[in-house]
Amino acid sequence: MDHQTLEIHSILEKFAPLKLGLNPTPIHRLQRLEEALGLEQVYIKRDDLNGLGPGGNKVRNLEFLLADAIRSGCDHIIASGKSQSNLCTLAAAACNKVDLKCTLVHNDLEPEHKVGNQLLNKLMGANQRFIGEVSVDERNHFVDELFKTLKRNGDHPYIIFNGGTSPIGALGYVAGVLEIAAQIENQNLPISDIFVPGGNGGLATGVVFGAACMDTPLKIQVISVENSKSELTGIMESLFDELVELTEYQPKHKFDEVCEIYGEFRGEGWGIPLREADEMIETLAQLEGIFLEKVYTAKGFNGMVELLKRNQGLALRGSCYLHSGGFSSLFSQYL
Amino acid sequence: MDHQTLEIHSILEKFAPLKLGLNPTPIHRLQRLEEALGLEQVYIKRDDLNGLGPGGNKVRNLEFLLADAIRSGCDHIIASGKSQSNLCTLAAAACNKVDLKCTLVHNDLEPEHKVGNQLLNKLMGANQRFIGEVSVDERNHFVDELFKTLKRNGDHPYIIFNGGTSPIGALGYVAGVLEIAAQIENQNLPISDIFVPGGNGGLATGVVFGAACMDTPLKIQVISVENSKSELTGIMESLFDELVELTEYQPKHKFDEVCEIYGEFRGEGWGIPLREADEMIETLAQLEGIFLEKVYTAKGFNGMVELLKRNQGLALRGSCYLHSGGFSSLFSQYL
Repeated sequence: MDHQTLEIHSILEKFAPLKLGLNPTPIHRLQRLEEALGLEQVYIKRDDLNGLGPGGNKVRNLEFLLADAIRSGCDHIIASGKSQSNLCTLAAAACNKVDLKCTLVHNDLEPEHKVGNQLLNKLMGANQRFIGEVSVDERNHFVDELFKTLKRNGDHPYIIFNGGTSPIGALGYVAGVLEIAAQIENQNLPISDIFVPGGNGGLATGVVFGAACMDTPLKIQVISVENSKSELTGIMESLFDELVELTEYQPKHKFDEVCEIYGEFRGEGWGIPLREADEMIETLAQLEGIFLEKVYTAKGFNGMVELLKRNQGLALRGSCYLHSGGFSSLFSQYL
Repeated sequence: MDHQTLEIHSILEKFAPLKLGLNPTPIHRLQRLEEALGLEQVYIKRDDLNGLGPGGNKVRNLEFLLADAIRSGCDHIIASGKSQSNLCTLAAAACNKVDLKCTLVHNDLEPEHKVGNQLLNKLMGANQRFIGEVSVDERNHFVDELFKTLKRNGDHPYIIFNGGTSPIGALGYVAGVLEIAAQIENQNLPISDIFVPGGNGGLATGVVFGAACMDTPLKIQVISVENSKSELTGIMESLFDELVELTEYQPKHKFDEVCEIYGEFRGEGWGIPLREADEMIETLAQLEGIFLEKVYTAKGFNGMVELLKRNQGLALRGSCYLHSGGFSSLFSQYL
């Protein structure tokens, strides 16, 4: 471990993250994919296998967020999102594991049939509020009012904003990319580029910040699944700056030294299926027996494959896709 | 590693199992369950996280079965079971990963809506034959005829009999329990009893055979989810003898020195939900954020908890539940 990495490790320790996921998660090669598509040295990091609830990336965010909540004396977590939100399901699982109260606020209607994450939420006894198809602003307003009500009733509520994408939440993937770097070093893996999906930018910015702290940084390739390149760049740069402020640590490398952001693989935006991405779900299942889902991972993985096909130089450097999970939501995507 | 264990390791190596699962899978403590139920030192072995397809125990069987198939010059696997069969889904995933043809024969009708494992089979492009609600004998007859047809057409078919429960398939859990024993030793875990669900006895007998090969054997507690104690004992003893024959190795300990078999936690038999087991799905989800399913793991886990509550001596020895997976089939169990 190089000097810079030691420094950021000790900074992360100060935030005393909870242990929620079974880390380190495995990293392994995709040999049949390579053969079938004429690629070389393509790896996958299996954060879908971190073993809390259905697994997935938000577990790392929650390790820092719930530690912050407990440190602040809070006992009741409020998370919000659509009824199939992975963050909501994982927040419920994490709160169960560490014995915190939890309320989920969904900006859609209660589905008649409990599929995917809704089944899991039900089995976990999650306290869910369905407030109908309202805007995110209106959902946030509802959450604020709920916060006040809970407080009046003697609870100590803690709001997880924006799907867990806050500076503290993003620390999860600062730690995540350090874990990847350690695996690359210890297992001597030929990987120089990490491909990640970019939604609201939390995972991606955490990974970029962590990479920027390394002596020899990994290169982070961010495939937007929602916003245009310029929009996502703006979101990530702001969050990067907030991470500098939160950690009081200036990474050795600048934001744009360590990452590239791509807007051209998102189709018509968040949650709107893209044919090529949907086909990639079948391709990976048929070559490796590994499942992606439509909203994040299939678009991200498809973006990686497209970039590697187009750019021989990039393809030769060795790539790793960060699988951010969402397996349970897959079951709601083919009704 | 003791002398006996070294011997059985080298015997297993002769069968040259494929590497399909991400082993070793994690083993970890269930602290909130312990606190809530007044238990001590309860661990879980996460074979649900082995990372091929939806994950689960049959991946270990398939490592030996597909190695045997390839060694025998076969190129087309036939697996059979109900349409939600975990073995079938994992066989399809494994064949995809190692590039073998695969046909699944289901003794039920093609479901209109693709839920649970049926969605996964579809995404994996599995070749499925639905032969209607016929007996297992009739299904086996269909498989025999299919075998002949494939052979006539130039394929080299290989039948996975009885859900992968054959002596060769059972070697997977001989290896599996050796992995557990190594983790107990390396991590210095206070575990002396391994609890496993017993369906057709493949997993359980493999684990028992492996334990019988150890100098100081782990004690294997088998919770039947299907047959009576005497029926399951008969099935397992026969398979144990077949393992002696296949490996040409006589374990140091006898079958009944290393295992106890329980028939009283199966309710009305295979696939018929049991209220206490269904409640255990919610209990574990609400305490640990870990999911069981109705057919195998909930009945097995419930049996373990009941036994630990009843028997203080057993409870103090330290227990580990072997989670055999089935997460994807859960989504078909609450329609």
